[in-house]
Amino acid sequence: MSDFPIEPWQVREHGLDLDRLARSESVFALSNGHIGLRGNLDEGEPFGIPGTYLNSFYELRPLPYAEVAYGYPESSQTVANVTNGKLIRLLVNDSPFDVRYGRLLEHERVLDFRAGTLTRYADWESPAGHRVRVRSTRLVSLTQRAIAAIEYSVEAVDGPVRLVVQSELVANEPTPTRSGDPRVAAALDHPLDAIAQEVRDDGATLVHRTRVSGLLMAASMNHLVEAPGPVNVDTSSADHWARTTFVCTLAPGQRLRLVKLLAYGWSGLRSESALCDQVAAALTRARHTGFDGLRAEQRSYLDDYWAGADVVVEGDPQLQQSVRFALFHVLQAAARAERRCLPAKGLTGPGYDGHTFWDTEAYLLPMLVFVQPHTVADALRWRHSTLDLARERAAALGLRGAAFPWRTIRGQECSGYWPAGTAAFHVNADIAAAVALYRAVTGDETLEAEAGLELLAETSRLWMSLGHHDSDGVWHITGVTGPDEYTAIINDNLFTNLAAAHNLRDAADAAQRHPDRARDLGITPAEIAAWRAAAEAVHVPYDGRLRVHQQSEGFTRLPEWDFDASREKYPLLLHAPYFDLYRKQVVKQADLLLAQYWFGHLFDDDDKARNVDYYERRTVRDSSLSAAIQAVTAAEVGHLGLAYDYTYEAAQIDLLDIDHNSGDGLHIASLAGVWTALVAGFGGLRHRDGVLCLAPQLPVGIHRLAFTVRWRGMRLGVDIDPQRVTYTLHDGPDGPDATLSLRHNGRTVTVSTAEPAVETLIRRRPLLPRPAQPPGRRPRAHRSWLDQPAS
Amino acid sequence: MSDFPIEPWQVREHGLDLDRLARSESVFALSNGHIGLRGNLDEGEPFGIPGTYLNSFYELRPLPYAEVAYGYPESSQTVANVTNGKLIRLLVNDSPFDVRYGRLLEHERVLDFRAGTLTRYADWESPAGHRVRVRSTRLVSLTQRAIAAIEYSVEAVDGPVRLVVQSELVANEPTPTRSGDPRVAAALDHPLDAIAQEVRDDGATLVHRTRVSGLLMAASMNHLVEAPGPVNVDTSSADHWARTTFVCTLAPGQRLRLVKLLAYGWSGLRSESALCDQVAAALTRARHTGFDGLRAEQRSYLDDYWAGADVVVEGDPQLQQSVRFALFHVLQAAARAERRCLPAKGLTGPGYDGHTFWDTEAYLLPMLVFVQPHTVADALRWRHSTLDLARERAAALGLRGAAFPWRTIRGQECSGYWPAGTAAFHVNADIAAAVALYRAVTGDETLEAEAGLELLAETSRLWMSLGHHDSDGVWHITGVTGPDEYTAIINDNLFTNLAAAHNLRDAADAAQRHPDRARDLGITPAEIAAWRAAAEAVHVPYDGRLRVHQQSEGFTRLPEWDFDASREKYPLLLHAPYFDLYRKQVVKQADLLLAQYWFGHLFDDDDKARNVDYYERRTVRDSSLSAAIQAVTAAEVGHLGLAYDYTYEAAQIDLLDIDHNSGDGLHIASLAGVWTALVAGFGGLRHRDGVLCLAPQLPVGIHRLAFTVRWRGMRLGVDIDPQRVTYTLHDGPDGPDATLSLRHNGRTVTVSTAEPAVETLIRRRPLLPRPAQPPGRRPRAHRSWLDQPAS
Repeated sequence: MSDFPIEPWQVREHGLDLDRLARSESVFALSNGHIGLRGNLDEGEPFGIPGTYLNSFYELRPLPYAEVAYGYPESSQTVANVTNGKLIRLLVNDSPFDVRYGRLLEHERVLDFRAGTLTRYADWESPAGHRVRVRSTRLVSLTQRAIAAIEYSVEAVDGPVRLVVQSELVANEPTPTRSGDPRVAAALDHPLDAIAQEVRDDGATLVHRTRVSGLLMAASMNHLVEAPGPVNVDTSSADHWARTTFVCTLAPGQRLRLVKLLAYGWSGLRSESALCDQVAAALTRARHTGFDGLRAEQRSYLDDYWAGADVVVEGDPQLQQSVRFALFHVLQAAARAERRCLPAKGLTGPGYDGHTFWDTEAYLLPMLVFVQPHTVADALRWRHSTLDLARERAAALGLRGAAFPWRTIRGQECSGYWPAGTAAFHVNADIAAAVALYRAVTGDETLEAEAGLELLAETSRLWMSLGHHDSDGVWHITGVTGPDEYTAIINDNLFTNLAAAHNLRDAADAAQRHPDRARDLGITPAEIAAWRAAAEAVHVPYDGRLRVHQQSEGFTRLPEWDFDASREKYPLLLHAPYFDLYRKQVVKQADLLLAQYWFGHLFDDDDKARNVDYYERRTVRDSSLSAAIQAVTAAEVGHLGLAYDYTYEAAQIDLLDIDHNSGDGLHIASLAGVWTALVAGFGGLRHRDGVLCLAPQLPVGIHRLAFTVRWRGMRLGVDIDPQRVTYTLHDGPDGPDATLSLRHNGRTVTVSTAEPAVETLIRRRPLLPRPAQPPGRRPRAHRSWLDQPAS
Repeated sequence: MSDFPIEPWQVREHGLDLDRLARSESVFALSNGHIGLRGNLDEGEPFGIPGTYLNSFYELRPLPYAEVAYGYPESSQTVANVTNGKLIRLLVNDSPFDVRYGRLLEHERVLDFRAGTLTRYADWESPAGHRVRVRSTRLVSLTQRAIAAIEYSVEAVDGPVRLVVQSELVANEPTPTRSGDPRVAAALDHPLDAIAQEVRDDGATLVHRTRVSGLLMAASMNHLVEAPGPVNVDTSSADHWARTTFVCTLAPGQRLRLVKLLAYGWSGLRSESALCDQVAAALTRARHTGFDGLRAEQRSYLDDYWAGADVVVEGDPQLQQSVRFALFHVLQAAARAERRCLPAKGLTGPGYDGHTFWDTEAYLLPMLVFVQPHTVADALRWRHSTLDLARERAAALGLRGAAFPWRTIRGQECSGYWPAGTAAFHVNADIAAAVALYRAVTGDETLEAEAGLELLAETSRLWMSLGHHDSDGVWHITGVTGPDEYTAIINDNLFTNLAAAHNLRDAADAAQRHPDRARDLGITPAEIAAWRAAAEAVHVPYDGRLRVHQQSEGFTRLPEWDFDASREKYPLLLHAPYFDLYRKQVVKQADLLLAQYWFGHLFDDDDKARNVDYYERRTVRDSSLSAAIQAVTAAEVGHLGLAYDYTYEAAQIDLLDIDHNSGDGLHIASLAGVWTALVAGFGGLRHRDGVLCLAPQLPVGIHRLAFTVRWRGMRLGVDIDPQRVTYTLHDGPDGPDATLSLRHNGRTVTVSTAEPAVETLIRRRPLLPRPAQPPGRRPRAHRSWLDQPAS
């Protein structure tokens, strides 16, 4: 049971559970996609994991191998914990404010999705009996990319107190040593070398460089202080810290208010002085805006976001809260990333070394394209900026075109286990799919011309060197790994085959749309013909006896996993060798089912129902990427209750810490998946041949589901209740008036800004009974959570 | 071209090539299977790799992983370079004898296969112009397991010389850092902690313990010195060295003769004092025997060996030399190993960390069983002694029975790359095959009762948990790796399937021969029935269109490797990722062809010919385990010239340093393979249903091939010339008179000690033309070598 009360627009924590600090630091993390601040306490201690991150600012660490082989990456990029500017320490009559001492009379933190702030309230009595109320409001600005700000106040309660407030910048904070779990990121010890310090009356700047990767960063702070009496201010610094100290005395009821403005910048190219100027400029602008101005900008930015992105769920307040939590954190991951990567954990924690995986293109972008489409163009331009590295990687692997990395920060392959890294070439088709999706949803052709066609062409060249036509002309891809990481190095992974075929077709189409650009890229008519021929001839493994599709060739003939024996052993990867997982019919995460969602037009309804039935029984969801997709495919074949349960699991992954690792950072893809489960699952949203398609359904327990999607410059509202669906068009691409033809349950419906369309909801009947999951892996139904006492 | 002159019973090196020291140290290594001394110069420097090894004496080193997963071994055992007792340093009028200084007027080393000694002659003039002749004879006793001995003499040539001879024991010698090649063993730095030193007038003992593995070892030396005048003797020691110094003056023509006796012992259990007593006892016995006595024992042991093992090759003196070189080194690896492992490099170098692989049972034992059968029983009893570790490993992997390690010294799995380690479960069937082979060839039932049945049963249990019956009842093994390391984690590897089926059948047969022992092992009639049912139903992948067997299911439908592009890139594993190797039709080493040799009765002649043709074109021989097997299968289908070329390649692997890594140690399995190529290839030796079968052939260029094999206590001579084959029976199991029925070309022939049998040689005609190998991978024909100038 979540310990956060259920409220529609915020996450509130009442009290402070020191054993769950790491999780709350992730849940309360603030980010604009460029700067990430974990929800550490203002005073820095106690902490689960201290964390301050800058997108793409990393250190290198060697990747060790027991047995080295050709093509293994020698080092990995690891997100660096940069100079901590969140720190504000407080002494109350000589007692340091530390919640572990004295008496914490009250403590509350609130993450507000509309305000975009983290507020905190602490009512504390020092060990010597002096009581203060501490309030802070923290934001990472969505409008001023380099800026974070904290409003911090201390109020004397019972008697006069002498206060010392130390506002700091601290580099190379000690971080806890992490567990041996392979999924927990390696810790970095003292990655920053001091380059320069600059001290001013009201603040300071520290400049550091990473030891191995050689990236330069600057952090700067300045302050505005208000108090009823005199305040002594003093700033000092050393190599790895700077400190502005405020000393004053408050009478009962009096308050000290401090505004701390923080600016961050980094560069791999620019000089120390250029970087110092850059943060000084940002800080000056923020100072002119002021804290209240920053707060107002933040709310306005978010108002605009929610107007195009909000999902209303009536009947299930917990899901209502969690889908907004999800939408908020996905925005935070992407908003100002601006041609840098979107890591699997955003900038909320050090998990997975801060790496970006296929999640970006396969989970985040397909949601963002409907709610914040410019972030998708940015993310794909980031991939495009790494194309040379991907070409080098392909060449090193003996392949043509571009091979994008399985995991990376800057673009270099950082995977140390090739069967579940390099071999998962589908990441390239996922990138290509996002390129095509962006064009289809936004109608924007510029991205395709400037970057998309080259991405499509180079990934197509990769596929042509990975695939081959057999003697019957059928096109196969051998020896790769699909999305399911419990099956590796296999032939004709259905998802990969279909995704590659789409990649090839999309490349061919795009080349023909942009013939000049295609010529520049050396794309010949013969090459285009070869792409189309391979796509047409792609092998789709199917078991004619069982009448189900095969996740890969021969999959349905592998031995079955002994699920009864592993009932208590999840995640399986911590209890069984890859050897055994790979050779049996045990599925970590949606793979065939992901293909069925993405390429649904290639499957008939009966096969879909049988496939869901077959793979549900063998999928253990040891990856957080699975539940949302299983929600979509379950909903599609009429298992609405099951879909609801999966939606719930995806939604609660971090609020309930289902995988026991939210402390390392949030599962951004799973959070994006909540939207997907609701909108693509219950809303039935797809697109096909440039037409938006919907097939709405509601599970028992939800009596209204309403969402807004952006489509070609318009905003379409979809409002579903148990009887009917109302489509509303809010604005058009070129002005207030617009008309949109969409498909509702396969039938064309026209909606205009002048007139909504109202359709009847027809309840889908499942072809087969609700399938069982492996023993012990049924999704935890939300009802039982609601009924359980807090744990 | 070899720089060793071609002589039938020895390897002679004239001069001293300092750039090839590592190789000559391996070629000149002496070992009895318990102690191994690399052919380092007496004075220790210069060296390629200093090396003194004790069988199974190892240090542990951590195995690092970029991404850890369940079931990965945490540490590896690495053969330790122990206290060097070979060292005898010499000062000639204050100049250290070092071949890099002064003038080396003559230098010669000879490894004598009949004497079992390494002799050395150096005629050296010091930088100051003082000339001496140094002679040494080194042996590692085949009769006294703990003993090595050196006879060392110095002769003054032109004028009187003052000599100082320092005979030493040195622990923790610095060893050179090795290359990044994955196949080169990791170096160990200072593995030995000093435990005790004991100094006597004529020698000393050093006791050390490995730091992590905690194994105790003792090395002891004593000396006997003869000189025309007085000799001052003095012994001293410190933690890591002991030194006996001899000082004397020689007139021209006078000689100092020193005999150094060395004893080694180690234990993981026994106390320091017990170990000291043990080496003292060995040293005392050796002293009683004396150097000449040791030399006489050595020759007598080897006379006996050669009488039962020699292979005579007429027409090709180079092959004659190299087959004896091979027979000598295989004997050295196995002779006194006595229930310890037989490493892939014997005790000749640190390659592969000193590990034992499947080579032992699949390459060494099938040869040794015909020439020195008791070593086979010892080696299998060693495997049996590690059965508990193999059971633990199986349990950790979620399997039943026993899973023997892919690479190990003591029995624990030391492989750090599971797709070509743990997944290569065929090692278990290879062990089982050696158990069955030993019984068939020797007729000895005691090994089976005491150890063999348990090995067969526990490996059978492993196979039953690895394999499964499909819905048609066919028995499959999925997700394993066969002998070919360029294809991994595949289904129904034909070799593994057939080897597992034989394992199961052999276990069933053995259980029924030993019902009481079977009951003790919990083997039920139902279990036996299940073993037989699986073996009967085993899947044998076959491509009906191409009419060839498939190395694994679907292999012949994988894309082809681009051999033209990789012409200059061998071994491929240093130039291509496993990813690409695994998914294409490129074969590192005999796999399907090994199955065709071992299980030849299951293939018809036409399939054999087509299989050879198909796999020859795709096999690159990046493993030294391949050529000998390809020789056998080529000979069997009538490609005698090709078989001859492969025999040559196997034979010359170390003398010509074909793989450029003989310096790390000799390729013992390839050397055993020379015998196999000649005896099983040209001799056509097989056994079937307890009957010895031969099908002799001679390639052009060899006009006589004669060999002796031991069969059930008898010695059978086989003498092949271009017209006829003469079978001679030398002695029987129970006395001088015996009769043997064998099959010659499928026809029963009877030979007795009284009367040889003479049969006509019938030349085999190949069904298909000689197949091509991949471009650049044709075996280097021996003719061209003979014609080439020395390089």
